[in-house]
Amino acid sequence: MKNVVTLLTDFGTVDGYVGAMKGVLAREVPGVLLHDIAHDIPRGDVYAAARTLSRYWSLWPMGTVHLVVVDPGVGTGRHPLAAEAEGRFFVGPDNGAVTPLLDSPGWRAVRYAPVVPPRSTTFHGRDLFAPMAARLAEGSPLDELGPLLEEPHRLPWSTSQGPLGQILGWDHFGNLQTDLEPAGGSFFAVTVEGRTLPFVPTYASVAPGEPLALLNSDGCIEIGIRDGSAREHFGWGRGTRVRLQRG
Amino acid sequence: MKNVVTLLTDFGTVDGYVGAMKGVLAREVPGVLLHDIAHDIPRGDVYAAARTLSRYWSLWPMGTVHLVVVDPGVGTGRHPLAAEAEGRFFVGPDNGAVTPLLDSPGWRAVRYAPVVPPRSTTFHGRDLFAPMAARLAEGSPLDELGPLLEEPHRLPWSTSQGPLGQILGWDHFGNLQTDLEPAGGSFFAVTVEGRTLPFVPTYASVAPGEPLALLNSDGCIEIGIRDGSAREHFGWGRGTRVRLQRG
Amino acid sequence: MKNVVTLLTDFGTVDGYVGAMKGVLAREVPGVLLHDIAHDIPRGDVYAAARTLSRYWSLWPMGTVHLVVVDPGVGTGRHPLAAEAEGRFFVGPDNGAVTPLLDSPGWRAVRYAPVVPPRSTTFHGRDLFAPMAARLAEGSPLDELGPLLEEPHRLPWSTSQGPLGQILGWDHFGNLQTDLEPAGGSFFAVTVEGRTLPFVPTYASVAPGEPLALLNSDGCIEIGIRDGSAREHFGWGRGTRVRLQRG
Repeated sequence: MKNVVTLLTDFGTVDGYVGAMKGVLAREVPGVLLHDIAHDIPRGDVYAAARTLSRYWSLWPMGTVHLVVVDPGVGTGRHPLAAEAEGRFFVGPDNGAVTPLLDSPGWRAVRYAPVVPPRSTTFHGRDLFAPMAARLAEGSPLDELGPLLEEPHRLPWSTSQGPLGQILGWDHFGNLQTDLEPAGGSFFAVTVEGRTLPFVPTYASVAPGEPLALLNSDGCIEIGIRDGSAREHFGWGRGTRVRLQRG
Repeated sequence: MKNVVTLLTDFGTVDGYVGAMKGVLAREVPGVLLHDIAHDIPRGDVYAAARTLSRYWSLWPMGTVHLVVVDPGVGTGRHPLAAEAEGRFFVGPDNGAVTPLLDSPGWRAVRYAPVVPPRSTTFHGRDLFAPMAARLAEGSPLDELGPLLEEPHRLPWSTSQGPLGQILGWDHFGNLQTDLEPAGGSFFAVTVEGRTLPFVPTYASVAPGEPLALLNSDGCIEIGIRDGSAREHFGWGRGTRVRLQRG
Repeated sequence: MKNVVTLLTDFGTVDGYVGAMKGVLAREVPGVLLHDIAHDIPRGDVYAAARTLSRYWSLWPMGTVHLVVVDPGVGTGRHPLAAEAEGRFFVGPDNGAVTPLLDSPGWRAVRYAPVVPPRSTTFHGRDLFAPMAARLAEGSPLDELGPLLEEPHRLPWSTSQGPLGQILGWDHFGNLQTDLEPAGGSFFAVTVEGRTLPFVPTYASVAPGEPLALLNSDGCIEIGIRDGSAREHFGWGRGTRVRLQRG
């Protein structure tokens, strides 16, 4: 088995904090393959981390350890968490970032119980979470890390079949993602704050600069502007109501 | 043979789209070595991607697969392309990003013909290009991916021996790159919009804050300001005319 | 032994300069594991690079080569340097970035003497430093690279046990780091420009938005604002005086 660990944080890279975590992993698991996902999650935005994680966690090979450290609660009583779903592992603070894995049947989670307390009270990424990830990457079973945790912290994570939904966030391109995940049927438009946007198969279906709605690669309704930023153009944020017009 | 894949995109990292592509590669090619080049190519700027690719593609080991996904035409009829030159591979949309490889004698290109259509109409990086790169990284010959493509899309890509040339772009440091690639001879200056800049061997040849021109690491004339940004200071953009003064 | 090389530069990623360095390493050391630390060090800020390096260099496995190229002096007479401390290697220009390793007893440094001059006068990362790192990653002993260098360039690098110290820099979160590294004792506050900040065990010890001082993961006094940016709020920069109030 190859040892594969992915890293997702809000640390930025310039300070070397991620470099410290990687060093711990490289030393404890010789030959480990470390893969950056992102280190530019908005500071402390656990929900954004969970949404990012939802796009990649299940695509990696069995045995992959996904290390996710967005940890505004460092130094509080929040538990260190390890979890397993569909043969992939999660390591991070128990603050809800693990939510996407908890949609999978058969998930399990444990609360990590370190033998000695971590060296620092401020950098658990290096002193607690990287060593946890190293143990799982080396092949330790989940149960060895600590006692079962029946109820990990969960973030609100529902989708709607419509017709009413809301905007959940936006991506690098300014495309707006919604919680509308229609099970089937045909649609002709999406309405947001009085604007009606045509429902089309792909971005190239409209002229450059024109708005549109489509079914995105997550299986949800997304609002965009071809070659432009719907986020900047419309200014709609998280929670804005969206209505799906069925055909 | 080691399996090496490099990644160049305009996806940013924060959304996990690159994480999804890497996951597909890591699962389909166990032990693959994935190397980030950049994910901050300006949105949809295929020309910038091609210029970036030109700086590194031929330096990697034989067999390396260079995955380049800057794809403003996703969802249009543009073909998925795979190419080979000097023993290195290219995978991406047929939009001209491959142009630097087409300067090499003996290049070959194929149009990918997937057996089943990609799962999404919007995320071909995950659903089409990563699987193509995986097949090449596993050792499949180029010809197995699809029929030969005689004329891949090419971007304008000429250089000039001078004395007239133009600015092509600028780098992270604000140094301005030109298409002047002199075959030899001696020079004493470069003139741009009435400004005359001394031609020197290296940045350290002038005092901090002073402008200069030199032969850069690509073999072309470059305009800079020592410890400063020529891009910001002069404001010259792509297409600005440059004249080389021979000595 | 696994071949592990880390990379720290101020090159950004978008131009492909880092991609070129990685290509040289991947070609010269088949199977090498390359790990990005950061490429967004502020341009030419050797001191920032040294501080970043100080956080990770000793955590990596024995034999790791730390390649650090922040090189405002490219093209001047500054030497290319290789060094070894605690079984880890450093490669980069002799401009002081190596300073953190020189705190370790038994360090050694050599001045690289290339047989042929580097191909370019502007891109020593690709043409000089990557090949040096490759030789060390392949297992060449340090001494083979060139003659011993008794006095590598050093940056000011002292810490203070207090009570007086100064601000050294700030991190991605806007937390301010000082050179106060108390050997022991109890403290109750830190005073800066007439402001008194409570000394607490962890960020979670104060309410969101409140300022604090604590012992950080480097073992030094740090000034922060919970869930906020002390750098933005106070505007204190490098060199601002700090006084530790012992209990």
